[in-house]
Amino acid sequence: MRKEGRLTRWIGWTVIVAALLLLGFIIGWFAKPTRPNTPNDTVSGKYLREFLDEMRPEQIREHLRKFTRLPHLAGTEQNLKYAEQIMKEWKEYGLDSVEMVPYDVLLSYPNKTQPNYISIIDQLGSEVFNTSLAEPVPEGYEDVSNIVPPYSAFSPKGQPEGDLVYVNYGRTEDFFQLERDMRVNATGRIVIVRYGKIFRGNKVKNAMLAGAKGIIMFSDPADYWAAGVLPYPDGWNLPGGGAQRGNVLNLNGAGDPLTPGYPAKEYTYRLSLEDGVGLPKIPVHPIGFHDAINLLKNMGGPIPPNNWKGALNISYRIGPGFTDDFKSQKLRMNIHSNNQITRIYNVIGRIRGALEPDRYVILGGHRDAWVFGGIDPMSGAAVVHETVRSAGRLISKGWRPRRTLIFASWDAEEFGLQGSTEWAEDNAKLLQERAVAYINADSAIEGMYTLRVDCTPSLHTLVYDLTKQIASPEEGEEGVSLYESWHKRDNWTDNRDAPRISKLGSGSDFEAYFIRLGIAAGRARYTKNKKTERYSSYPVYHSVYETFEVVEKFYDPSFKRLRAVAQVRGGLIFQLADSQLLPLDVNQYADALGKYAQSIAQLGHRHPEEMNTYRVSFDSLFSAVENFTVAARDFHERLQTLNKEDPLQLRIVNDQLMYLERAFIDPLGLPGRPFYRHVIFAPSSHNKYAGESFPGIYDALFDIQNSADKQKSWEDVKRQISIAAFTVHAAAMTLTPPS
Amino acid sequence: MRKEGRLTRWIGWTVIVAALLLLGFIIGWFAKPTRPNTPNDTVSGKYLREFLDEMRPEQIREHLRKFTRLPHLAGTEQNLKYAEQIMKEWKEYGLDSVEMVPYDVLLSYPNKTQPNYISIIDQLGSEVFNTSLAEPVPEGYEDVSNIVPPYSAFSPKGQPEGDLVYVNYGRTEDFFQLERDMRVNATGRIVIVRYGKIFRGNKVKNAMLAGAKGIIMFSDPADYWAAGVLPYPDGWNLPGGGAQRGNVLNLNGAGDPLTPGYPAKEYTYRLSLEDGVGLPKIPVHPIGFHDAINLLKNMGGPIPPNNWKGALNISYRIGPGFTDDFKSQKLRMNIHSNNQITRIYNVIGRIRGALEPDRYVILGGHRDAWVFGGIDPMSGAAVVHETVRSAGRLISKGWRPRRTLIFASWDAEEFGLQGSTEWAEDNAKLLQERAVAYINADSAIEGMYTLRVDCTPSLHTLVYDLTKQIASPEEGEEGVSLYESWHKRDNWTDNRDAPRISKLGSGSDFEAYFIRLGIAAGRARYTKNKKTERYSSYPVYHSVYETFEVVEKFYDPSFKRLRAVAQVRGGLIFQLADSQLLPLDVNQYADALGKYAQSIAQLGHRHPEEMNTYRVSFDSLFSAVENFTVAARDFHERLQTLNKEDPLQLRIVNDQLMYLERAFIDPLGLPGRPFYRHVIFAPSSHNKYAGESFPGIYDALFDIQNSADKQKSWEDVKRQISIAAFTVHAAAMTLTPPS
Repeated sequence: MRKEGRLTRWIGWTVIVAALLLLGFIIGWFAKPTRPNTPNDTVSGKYLREFLDEMRPEQIREHLRKFTRLPHLAGTEQNLKYAEQIMKEWKEYGLDSVEMVPYDVLLSYPNKTQPNYISIIDQLGSEVFNTSLAEPVPEGYEDVSNIVPPYSAFSPKGQPEGDLVYVNYGRTEDFFQLERDMRVNATGRIVIVRYGKIFRGNKVKNAMLAGAKGIIMFSDPADYWAAGVLPYPDGWNLPGGGAQRGNVLNLNGAGDPLTPGYPAKEYTYRLSLEDGVGLPKIPVHPIGFHDAINLLKNMGGPIPPNNWKGALNISYRIGPGFTDDFKSQKLRMNIHSNNQITRIYNVIGRIRGALEPDRYVILGGHRDAWVFGGIDPMSGAAVVHETVRSAGRLISKGWRPRRTLIFASWDAEEFGLQGSTEWAEDNAKLLQERAVAYINADSAIEGMYTLRVDCTPSLHTLVYDLTKQIASPEEGEEGVSLYESWHKRDNWTDNRDAPRISKLGSGSDFEAYFIRLGIAAGRARYTKNKKTERYSSYPVYHSVYETFEVVEKFYDPSFKRLRAVAQVRGGLIFQLADSQLLPLDVNQYADALGKYAQSIAQLGHRHPEEMNTYRVSFDSLFSAVENFTVAARDFHERLQTLNKEDPLQLRIVNDQLMYLERAFIDPLGLPGRPFYRHVIFAPSSHNKYAGESFPGIYDALFDIQNSADKQKSWEDVKRQISIAAFTVHAAAMTLTPPS
Repeated sequence: MRKEGRLTRWIGWTVIVAALLLLGFIIGWFAKPTRPNTPNDTVSGKYLREFLDEMRPEQIREHLRKFTRLPHLAGTEQNLKYAEQIMKEWKEYGLDSVEMVPYDVLLSYPNKTQPNYISIIDQLGSEVFNTSLAEPVPEGYEDVSNIVPPYSAFSPKGQPEGDLVYVNYGRTEDFFQLERDMRVNATGRIVIVRYGKIFRGNKVKNAMLAGAKGIIMFSDPADYWAAGVLPYPDGWNLPGGGAQRGNVLNLNGAGDPLTPGYPAKEYTYRLSLEDGVGLPKIPVHPIGFHDAINLLKNMGGPIPPNNWKGALNISYRIGPGFTDDFKSQKLRMNIHSNNQITRIYNVIGRIRGALEPDRYVILGGHRDAWVFGGIDPMSGAAVVHETVRSAGRLISKGWRPRRTLIFASWDAEEFGLQGSTEWAEDNAKLLQERAVAYINADSAIEGMYTLRVDCTPSLHTLVYDLTKQIASPEEGEEGVSLYESWHKRDNWTDNRDAPRISKLGSGSDFEAYFIRLGIAAGRARYTKNKKTERYSSYPVYHSVYETFEVVEKFYDPSFKRLRAVAQVRGGLIFQLADSQLLPLDVNQYADALGKYAQSIAQLGHRHPEEMNTYRVSFDSLFSAVENFTVAARDFHERLQTLNKEDPLQLRIVNDQLMYLERAFIDPLGLPGRPFYRHVIFAPSSHNKYAGESFPGIYDALFDIQNSADKQKSWEDVKRQISIAAFTVHAAAMTLTPPS
């Protein structure tokens, strides 16, 4: 009995000891984290809310006020001062590092002692009319110096004389119409075109191709005047004395014209000016509509079709030259601008990623402005500034994003996206291997109606999800999300019941990142109502009237619209940098490719007989898109079972997501445009602003209409279809399980 | 007392319970692995030993025997049969997957009914001498059909007639000498040159540039005859009736001439033959030295310098044409070969990586042969086969490499590296993002003396470490390592006390991987004693006498040399695929860059006055190399403290190592050669075989000597120095800590 009792006790104790040990073991086992530092998305979500809520309209107002007091053209002392101030403040806000990155690039300035202008001269060569040398200075800025007068940057010097020919917007089709239908030849003449519809550099290229010896561009009220709105300062319309500055390069993504493909450092070899990329060979000058009336009113020649007529009270005759009464008068351009290699400064700030410091999410926008930059670009720069401030606040609370965040204040965007392109060239290897996404931050507002987003298809879902978490800035829409407000105003009717998102074209700093390097990219801003407001961009665009006041008085008095834009841009980079799984939606890319293939094939099928004769087929493209669609669907299905706790598995899938956009890059570039390498998205050769899908095919089809050798032109189309099909197939391969 | 006792007891028990729980907790905490599946390098090392030891000479012998019985030219049925057999056997050996990947590329074959030959014709046009239509068939192969006669693949059809001009090796400098010193013009004539020194395609290009209407190439005993060795079958020298086949393209890395930049799939757009890349425009034909004597013996014109004389018992006069007695005789080439689009087949086998399936290590070599391919390529293919067999054995023991292993049997290498290049084009996106290294497996033996390794500098250390673990195959060297044996025979005297390792040139399938895509690459084979054996490649190269027997009887009767090569190639891919930390040595790259910069600068300083006049400096390059050297040193220092247990930290560092080679790629390519993109290594424009360091600078300097516009030529040099400096700086950036 006693023995048995002892035994029982012994067993009992052993069991208890074992149980306690086991319990401890189990607790220990499960208490130990499988991996350190795997913050989950719930925590990240909480920080996102704080990040968005921290952004304040009054702060944005203050930033905008601060950086629009003085003109800060690229290459000037004032623009360096603002750069230094931004650097200082970003450091104070708490970024890990902020550096100033200089390049020496080709810029262009008017000659200070010999102004640019255009004259009407009589037969003795005497000037009977001269265009104005400057815009009337807006009130409050009378004492400001260093306001650069309106000019076309990179115009060569020259004083060509000749008869004027009016060519509407100066588009390829306008010149066709001029030469074919109206039988007017622009060769040896000075062309005058209105601003709008396409990028001004394309107008200049077209004028050169047509043999013109000079080109004048003017802002017609039809294109730069909103109905019922007063001219600045009483409203936001362009006064008659205002004119649009702008560069007239055809860089096609080259950045600094003298160092295509390489960063413009001190030791970098520079091409001669004659060999520089995209420099126009004929003088160019911009004028306002007061001056334009004087040049146009006496023109002779045919009366144009109605769609060539602007809103001025003149007949818009084509020319060449003036009517009989003024036959002996000619035009003379007087252009004395200088190209000069000039130092520019980007400001680059960083927050180092906690877990994946070698993955980059970039928010970049330019700082240089033609004059004050009230809208372009400081409405965007103010938003970046507020984003950095808010991110700094989070950092001080212990937050650190999973991936590295990079903030950029670019210089010399107005001179051909130079600051952003040179930095992209400088860092191309790193960006190609490490960049997850680039969000652009140019002008944050160009209208008072609703949100506008242009982005790569894989960002669509993130944009929708995010805008549902942001409040509408519109009065009377309390409690309404930005998504709802946007959806109500701009439904994507043709395609789907969701707010419209457009393709990225070019014309801002995302270009080198998206179109050359293949980094997923997007931009967001507040915009006008495109259905009712027909003017190009916004009326005071690139004029001296782009002031702080034009925003404060008219575009966004409460600064809530800018705050909403800040929340969109900031929210995008936050989610891209901090989500465990990259918030990129491959299915959206598949959908988009399907639509683009349909639409480019439709364009081809406008020539059914020739398609037949030259045996052109889009089948290989459709089959590639089908292949991609299946791969995308399977990819997202596999994501359902992904073990996000396994850092390698997660990284592998994220790499697939990151590199998808890269897969659309053709290292050989589009025909004749080595720096436009994105096979799905690039501007067409005929308008830098408009993003075309399958631009290689688009351009080849565009050329069919004007082709002398149909066989050769259709061979070009077939080759481009083949390249597109291959590229889509190759992209699909990147989505299959790696092995 | 009682109460106190109870309390004490209570405390005692509590302490015991807590201690037990704590003990359990501690055991549980530490028993749990931080991460699953982190095999360490000790385990990997044990498997490496087994992997190397499993490779057997008799197995290699059997593989070689099996795949050299019948001619297997690219595009023929027999070569497809071998592909199917390889596919089947690789599956049996245990690869995870093996697939056949076809492409439709441009190949070239003699016309079966109209043979190619060269005639001496009299003034009536009658043939007084004709070159042989085929090589005498080696004994034992008399009944074999489908032996293609010697021809120059891709020669256009044609029957040019004219006088002969002898131009030594047909190098750029030979043509200079011909035209400048000897005042002989090749225009309108048929050029005859001896094989050797440079790639035959470069000879053809030079003849075209000189205006020749045809070119004949012959194998001179001076270049294809080893002293004291009998001709095949009694020895391994080239019989007088033997001739060297080979393609005469100037592809510069384009792959299929009709689909440059894209894989030659069914849907792929093809250029017309006229627009095809690198196709020669003049007829070309190869002959042996028996025929050559007959063409050369009666030649007239000047007696050449001694270094133009071969080993035939003739005077090697330059021409043009024959001596007085034979003045009326001319030469006629009769070439009837056809270019035709033909299906080729790569075999691709894989072992999926256990932890990083999205990282690729590739072992690739070609399978197609001009005839039997006893040496080229089957000595290499047999080695790959044995490597796959050995890897399969490890798999069956439960091993699986950390990264994915890819084995490739390429087709149509002999027609311009087409199989490997098309696959690289097809998979470019994946390879660019995922490929760690490419090891080439062409001919495994070209001599009986010692090891030869050509590879990228970052592989040097791995090659040395590995060869110390492999036994010397030489008789009487039992217990001596391959490293020691190699070191003793070929010390790298100029540079360092270690076995010589050379730069990669081109001429085999690594080209697209290394020079176009920037994937770390290397090759290894057994070679001759370069100090005493002066002949080019090996005597029977590309002749019908490259049989199984030439290897078995002369080159490697024990098959131990081939085993040693198998162990080097196999060991390299094993270590690259299975090491936790990639075995790439960045410091070695820094050292190499330093030497290359010195040596290219010396080349420039041969023109001290012009360097001064045109203000040419290599300073930016030296400063970039210095920068890289510091970055490399710091990188390796940081590796000392790397936490290899953290999978993300490890992956980040491995990515830096992997992408270093990629950083030397210039997406714009070298001038005029868009597919030669490696700024540090590429063949010069004057010889595809010879790898030059800083080839852009090298070519620009080469052109100086013959330049009419010195200013322009030196501007080219300056531009190339700037590009090289930028590229080295950019590569250095990839080594700094990411953020």
